[in-house]
Amino acid sequence: MSYTPEEPIAAIATALAPSALAIIRVSGKNCIELISNVFSRPKALNNAKGNTLLYGWILAPADHSIVKTTQTVERARIDEVMLAVYRNPKSFTGEDMVEIFCHGGVSPVKSVYNQLLKNGFREAEKGEYTFRAFLNGKTDLTRAEAVREIIDSKTDFSRGRAADRLSGTLFEQIESLKQQLANTLSHIEVGIEYPEDENAIKDSYDSEELRTIEKKLTELSSSWAAEKLYQEGTRIVLCGRTNAGKSSLFNTLLKQDRAIVSDIHGTTRDWIESWISFDGIPARLFDTAGLRETKDSIEAIGVERTKELAADADLNLYLIDATEGIKNEDKNELEALLKNKNKTPLIVVINKTDIAGTDTSKEIADNLLSSFAKLPTTPILNVPANNTNISITPDTIVFISAKKGTGISKLVATVRQTLTAKIGTSNMKTGLGSERQKRAVDDAITSVNHAIHAPEKGLGGDAVILDLEAAIASLGEITGEVSPDDILGNIFSQFCVGK
Amino acid sequence: MSYTPEEPIAAIATALAPSALAIIRVSGKNCIELISNVFSRPKALNNAKGNTLLYGWILAPADHSIVKTTQTVERARIDEVMLAVYRNPKSFTGEDMVEIFCHGGVSPVKSVYNQLLKNGFREAEKGEYTFRAFLNGKTDLTRAEAVREIIDSKTDFSRGRAADRLSGTLFEQIESLKQQLANTLSHIEVGIEYPEDENAIKDSYDSEELRTIEKKLTELSSSWAAEKLYQEGTRIVLCGRTNAGKSSLFNTLLKQDRAIVSDIHGTTRDWIESWISFDGIPARLFDTAGLRETKDSIEAIGVERTKELAADADLNLYLIDATEGIKNEDKNELEALLKNKNKTPLIVVINKTDIAGTDTSKEIADNLLSSFAKLPTTPILNVPANNTNISITPDTIVFISAKKGTGISKLVATVRQTLTAKIGTSNMKTGLGSERQKRAVDDAITSVNHAIHAPEKGLGGDAVILDLEAAIASLGEITGEVSPDDILGNIFSQFCVGK
Repeated sequence: MSYTPEEPIAAIATALAPSALAIIRVSGKNCIELISNVFSRPKALNNAKGNTLLYGWILAPADHSIVKTTQTVERARIDEVMLAVYRNPKSFTGEDMVEIFCHGGVSPVKSVYNQLLKNGFREAEKGEYTFRAFLNGKTDLTRAEAVREIIDSKTDFSRGRAADRLSGTLFEQIESLKQQLANTLSHIEVGIEYPEDENAIKDSYDSEELRTIEKKLTELSSSWAAEKLYQEGTRIVLCGRTNAGKSSLFNTLLKQDRAIVSDIHGTTRDWIESWISFDGIPARLFDTAGLRETKDSIEAIGVERTKELAADADLNLYLIDATEGIKNEDKNELEALLKNKNKTPLIVVINKTDIAGTDTSKEIADNLLSSFAKLPTTPILNVPANNTNISITPDTIVFISAKKGTGISKLVATVRQTLTAKIGTSNMKTGLGSERQKRAVDDAITSVNHAIHAPEKGLGGDAVILDLEAAIASLGEITGEVSPDDILGNIFSQFCVGK
Repeated sequence: MSYTPEEPIAAIATALAPSALAIIRVSGKNCIELISNVFSRPKALNNAKGNTLLYGWILAPADHSIVKTTQTVERARIDEVMLAVYRNPKSFTGEDMVEIFCHGGVSPVKSVYNQLLKNGFREAEKGEYTFRAFLNGKTDLTRAEAVREIIDSKTDFSRGRAADRLSGTLFEQIESLKQQLANTLSHIEVGIEYPEDENAIKDSYDSEELRTIEKKLTELSSSWAAEKLYQEGTRIVLCGRTNAGKSSLFNTLLKQDRAIVSDIHGTTRDWIESWISFDGIPARLFDTAGLRETKDSIEAIGVERTKELAADADLNLYLIDATEGIKNEDKNELEALLKNKNKTPLIVVINKTDIAGTDTSKEIADNLLSSFAKLPTTPILNVPANNTNISITPDTIVFISAKKGTGISKLVATVRQTLTAKIGTSNMKTGLGSERQKRAVDDAITSVNHAIHAPEKGLGGDAVILDLEAAIASLGEITGEVSPDDILGNIFSQFCVGK
């Protein structure tokens, strides 16, 4: 990566939509002087101390003046702004920086931004501010990644964990593990330096020490599965026949969860979807409309789409209308879902139990259990062993009334349990925040494990030293102490522009 | 309006969508101390000078701690932030203020905001910050309204004019007119004070002076028509038969105008719409899909919707496919559009002229002109006199090729001319920015006019004094010097929250 730091960059850092305020952010050498060329108080700006705020106007260049209204106004006024001035090295990037707080409409923001692009700034790449912060030693990679994780977080839970990483908890954990490896390494090196003293080598090689480190690394590695679920969320699809109550359940779940719900989007022709939190787990919930719009030629497409959604889901919820009982269509559909090749877990939701009554509802459940009993069951909920189909068990049938809201908390708990069953109990401390970090920890584990088993394989101290050095290097990749260029490019390209 | 200023208020001032940064704004008595309760560096914040920036973390209260990860972290970290500290009276509202710059994701913004609402702040009303600025004498009403106008501006042109008003040009104009009225008033008062001197009264009553003021006020009043067009924009509907090229033209116009175009929205079943600028005039352009989706039962609804859109439009563009010529459907549709009761102007766009050739295209135009010649024509473009129908004239037929992009600039010019025909030539200086301001200026004109004609009606100096006082009061309403409570409420409720 041939990269020129200090080049003046600019970016709109807030969402571009009508709002009270917006932020345009610039960084780089001479950026304060460059802004002063389009600012109504150039002297005050050039003399401004770091970490101070300045009132004024962004102006068009004299010759670009759009409307000359009075003699006193020589240059067209673009917008009234506050400037936040930061002086190197006390800024986010570590360079001189200015943040322009302008009015939040699309037109003022674009006008101010365009002025900057015409006056010495280029558009910033995604994550370029954070990248510069990293280059200037203002942050390590774990904290840089945590910034993106905070912005992308879909629930308070994942935001809280990312905030912890941003505050440096993961960085400290990694540094501590590196230190422990370095200590072990130096003991072994001492032993090799004095090979005449056999006890020195023997004493210096304490595989217990390495096993402890390996255990900690393994814990860290396994933390990613849960983290990933909370960070990236999961896909849950509502299936079932027309009028089983899918849309009612969808709305009931959204209402329960007003705080986290985003706008409903998707094309209503095919399906409706929304982000929702199942007890802290962010989920994209799909209300499939395909099966209910089974008229004319749209039928085939709708059914096909629902099948595709169900196949891609992490969990399917199949709704049955208790007042109608199980129809052949239900049986066929359930069979297909149970045999799906991705082994997507399935929860059967018996709806309208308030109208059908408890006895009828239980009969339906018993009917389901006996119908699908022939399929082998698995011990832990419906998580399948490798070559068996998933099945319906008493634990994966939930009785609800979507209209009355009964049984919903039980359903949420069942969903949560099903989703977390694979990743074990969540006695979670701050853990890893990205797939990249997990790969590096796993590399370190491989190296440490190799070192532990060196004696059995007849390998000497030199081999162990190489292993431990490799493990330290792998951990160094996580914080960015040692990181190939392509890793850096990859990390920062996932950021928002302006961050 | 029983209003408690200084009450601590909070608002999210940026658009709530994933982005690098966001701003949460607070104002009111003790707001700095209140923020210090949820800030990682309370002492530094309480001691911070005005117009300075402070780095730190927003923290949860000790007992609300979400994840306790290490012993060192006692309170859960919500987000890493910069605080902009403003001390009364040097702030936007004139009160103590803090702006919190946090990360721009929905989750961090809501979490920080919720912390504030739990810690002594209430949600700000729309425009409440500007209202406080007004109450504290930091702004007058013309500038306050200009803030909203900047945020809502749809083109550079309207943004530029609002920025001029925000800088005080309108305020100065109004103040100057008030001063001129006050001068005239004092001359007349002098005359009345010394009634024994007949010449004093005669000399003091200079109706020329008042006529000059009336002329300036009338100019100001008439500036609103153009301003309104630029500010609020206009609705333009593309009509025509299937395959006339409506969507191609829609896309071609959008492409020409990339800078101003917002996202295309609307439901594709019925129509597509987008904001677009016709040479500085913001327009909501509608691509009606109704006429092209004329199958099954949807047909009736689609045609009906297009008719409704056309009836509500400020201008209709009717596309004709030059390779197909004029069909009976075209004639019927054109006749309906020409007879519409709102007298919406119409431009006929003959498309695909590149394929049909010049001769065929001209023939179509001639055919149209003769077909609709029976309808009375109007002198200035297609702006109708009161009781005539609008008509098709050579000036309102444009030849284009939407695919090749030919004729588009001619079309844009014709659209602009048609839209501005009613409001006269736009030799526009900074003018009025709202309907409210126009009403007040018109009231002032009525009073001044009454004063001018006082002598003819045999009214004395006392009556003229009352008139001029009324005129000054009307102008005072514009700047907010004299403003009934309901006017204030009305103005500020049109603002964004956070402004």
